[in-house]
Amino acid sequence: MKMYLMTPGPTPVAPETQLAMAQPIIHHRSPQFMEILGKVREDLKYLFQTEQEVLIFAATGTGAMEGAVINTLSAGDTALVIDGGKFGERWTELCNVYGVKVERLAVEWGHAVDPKAVAKMLDANPAIKAVFVQANETSTAVQHPVQELAAVTKARPGTILVVDAISALGGVPMPMDKWGIDVLVAGSQKAMMLPPGLAFVALSPKAWEFVKTSKLPKYYFDFAKALKSADKNQTPYTSPVSLILGLREVLTKIRQVGLEKIFAHNRRLSLATKAAMKAMGLKLYSKDNPSDVLTAVETPVDGQKVVAELRKKGIWIAGGQAQAKGKIIRIAHMGFIDTVDLLGTIGGLEEVFNQLGYKVAPGVGLKAAQEILSKEAAV
Amino acid sequence: MKMYLMTPGPTPVAPETQLAMAQPIIHHRSPQFMEILGKVREDLKYLFQTEQEVLIFAATGTGAMEGAVINTLSAGDTALVIDGGKFGERWTELCNVYGVKVERLAVEWGHAVDPKAVAKMLDANPAIKAVFVQANETSTAVQHPVQELAAVTKARPGTILVVDAISALGGVPMPMDKWGIDVLVAGSQKAMMLPPGLAFVALSPKAWEFVKTSKLPKYYFDFAKALKSADKNQTPYTSPVSLILGLREVLTKIRQVGLEKIFAHNRRLSLATKAAMKAMGLKLYSKDNPSDVLTAVETPVDGQKVVAELRKKGIWIAGGQAQAKGKIIRIAHMGFIDTVDLLGTIGGLEEVFNQLGYKVAPGVGLKAAQEILSKEAAV
Repeated sequence: MKMYLMTPGPTPVAPETQLAMAQPIIHHRSPQFMEILGKVREDLKYLFQTEQEVLIFAATGTGAMEGAVINTLSAGDTALVIDGGKFGERWTELCNVYGVKVERLAVEWGHAVDPKAVAKMLDANPAIKAVFVQANETSTAVQHPVQELAAVTKARPGTILVVDAISALGGVPMPMDKWGIDVLVAGSQKAMMLPPGLAFVALSPKAWEFVKTSKLPKYYFDFAKALKSADKNQTPYTSPVSLILGLREVLTKIRQVGLEKIFAHNRRLSLATKAAMKAMGLKLYSKDNPSDVLTAVETPVDGQKVVAELRKKGIWIAGGQAQAKGKIIRIAHMGFIDTVDLLGTIGGLEEVFNQLGYKVAPGVGLKAAQEILSKEAAV
Repeated sequence: MKMYLMTPGPTPVAPETQLAMAQPIIHHRSPQFMEILGKVREDLKYLFQTEQEVLIFAATGTGAMEGAVINTLSAGDTALVIDGGKFGERWTELCNVYGVKVERLAVEWGHAVDPKAVAKMLDANPAIKAVFVQANETSTAVQHPVQELAAVTKARPGTILVVDAISALGGVPMPMDKWGIDVLVAGSQKAMMLPPGLAFVALSPKAWEFVKTSKLPKYYFDFAKALKSADKNQTPYTSPVSLILGLREVLTKIRQVGLEKIFAHNRRLSLATKAAMKAMGLKLYSKDNPSDVLTAVETPVDGQKVVAELRKKGIWIAGGQAQAKGKIIRIAHMGFIDTVDLLGTIGGLEEVFNQLGYKVAPGVGLKAAQEILSKEAAV
């Protein structure tokens, strides 16, 4: 059976990338590998839209999130955590572990944070040194307004904006330098079209100043040490050679295609999906800023059953997490996914809904999707 | 040009493993993946020779070393670090970062620690809660006497033995439960014949008791959380799917061949190499317990030049690190390496030594190696 991975991470890996990663292992301290890392470093700056160094860690994104906390703050510092889903909670957990005081700005699941509320909290408590947020909250498919949040923190020399863009970077616009993001975290297994196992982080000059005064303990995720190694086209410890070979391959592709085209491609798939779901009578779970890399809809039947039935057709979408479990389904529009995958997924969903007792006229979702696809130019 | 990777990590990856890792990505929370992880968990217990759970992290070995410190100790605790090389130093660095007081037992490079000296230090300072050591100090190719050290710590309920076996596990005997090792750390890119990117650690029941009282902050490398996830055939965060597919492949192979045969194979290559080096007039750098997975010899000409010239023939060995830089060369006998690789390497070395002005009669090293190979049965 063919398999279609439409989950918001891991996402499919292209055969060319798989072949690149299947090349013989070369030594991580060799001139050959250092040349590869040099190329990768340049291309990562393009992807992050930054002039700063993008640090690479053998870890999943959570490792870089932990790094973002322990490299910029000290015990007793105060942070503002924007918590609008499962990944928002992770920032609070991390701060708690390290004795960072958390002012939590709870956002109802399915909603985006109001930048004015953030500005108000920062005004009320000037001790807040960092604002933690998700660019795209994967559990709710909501994009928080990162550009507006950056405008708020840019004006405050004592506060940095730390953005978990694990499911956003490379999928939707996130120009780090232009917007003024201070710490930008990404992972390999989403829009970057690689297997899980690489985490990335870039810091603004303002954030690097915070690193100088941070007193939290760090070793494996020590950003200053990683920066020193990067200058020599190395990583502090053994580089995950095969994943880096895959990274070189995807970054070359991404530059060839161009970020703008990739963003437009994802948005096209997203609009078509959202139209199809609406035509089938389903409601978006994301009330504000629905994501362009992910669609979450409320299901009229048990979402877990929808996911399970669709898997029997080889199509993998995600269900809901925690409080949204069973209530929603989530379909990804990031990475190595195209209209063929999407139309097949919508067709499969039409069938599954009918099987589970929610009646949908055959083709109603597909027609709505196709209408969007015919209007929005393919890229 | 063909490439022969004879370095002590990364080591060559077999084509079958490369193909296993090139399979389509599957979702890390799927029943299919959980079944794979279940199989891998069982096979890892075989490899570690333990009944305890072997935790898996998306990281390189250093991450698991950090985990070993932060999950068993608290700030202000005292640890004894056996420091006989570059990797011994890493334990001290880690303890310093986390406010763990270090009693350092310096061992001259090229020598093994004396277990009696360790016992004496533990008698003199009963506050010592952990002894940190390398099973195989990769920078000197010396095996520390882990079995004897474990006998020392086993008798002391307040002290655990933490072993970095990153370059030893799967290459030389290291029966965790039988010897009484409390924390055993490994990595994917040495005897385990995988690319870098996976770290492993197993803890004895005694060490798990230490985890309960440890107060150092931890998140990504939180062992208790990883244990809970393992029980459900999961990892706490996104599993590095492709590396785990490779891991399943190599562990299946390792069980089919059997650990004893693998150890004997490595030892055979090691003995042949050491005989060849001696026949060429070179001295072992490892004065005590020369390793069976790695040979380090003092070079009569600049070791860095030997490494560089040999690379031109497609053969990759390692030079010396830190104080041994330029003075030694290191040849690995772990992982996916056989007699063909070894004879080619020795032949290449004979040529390079002659090129660099150290005269070696053609075939003198090869003859000595072949004499050993003909005596020691192939396995």
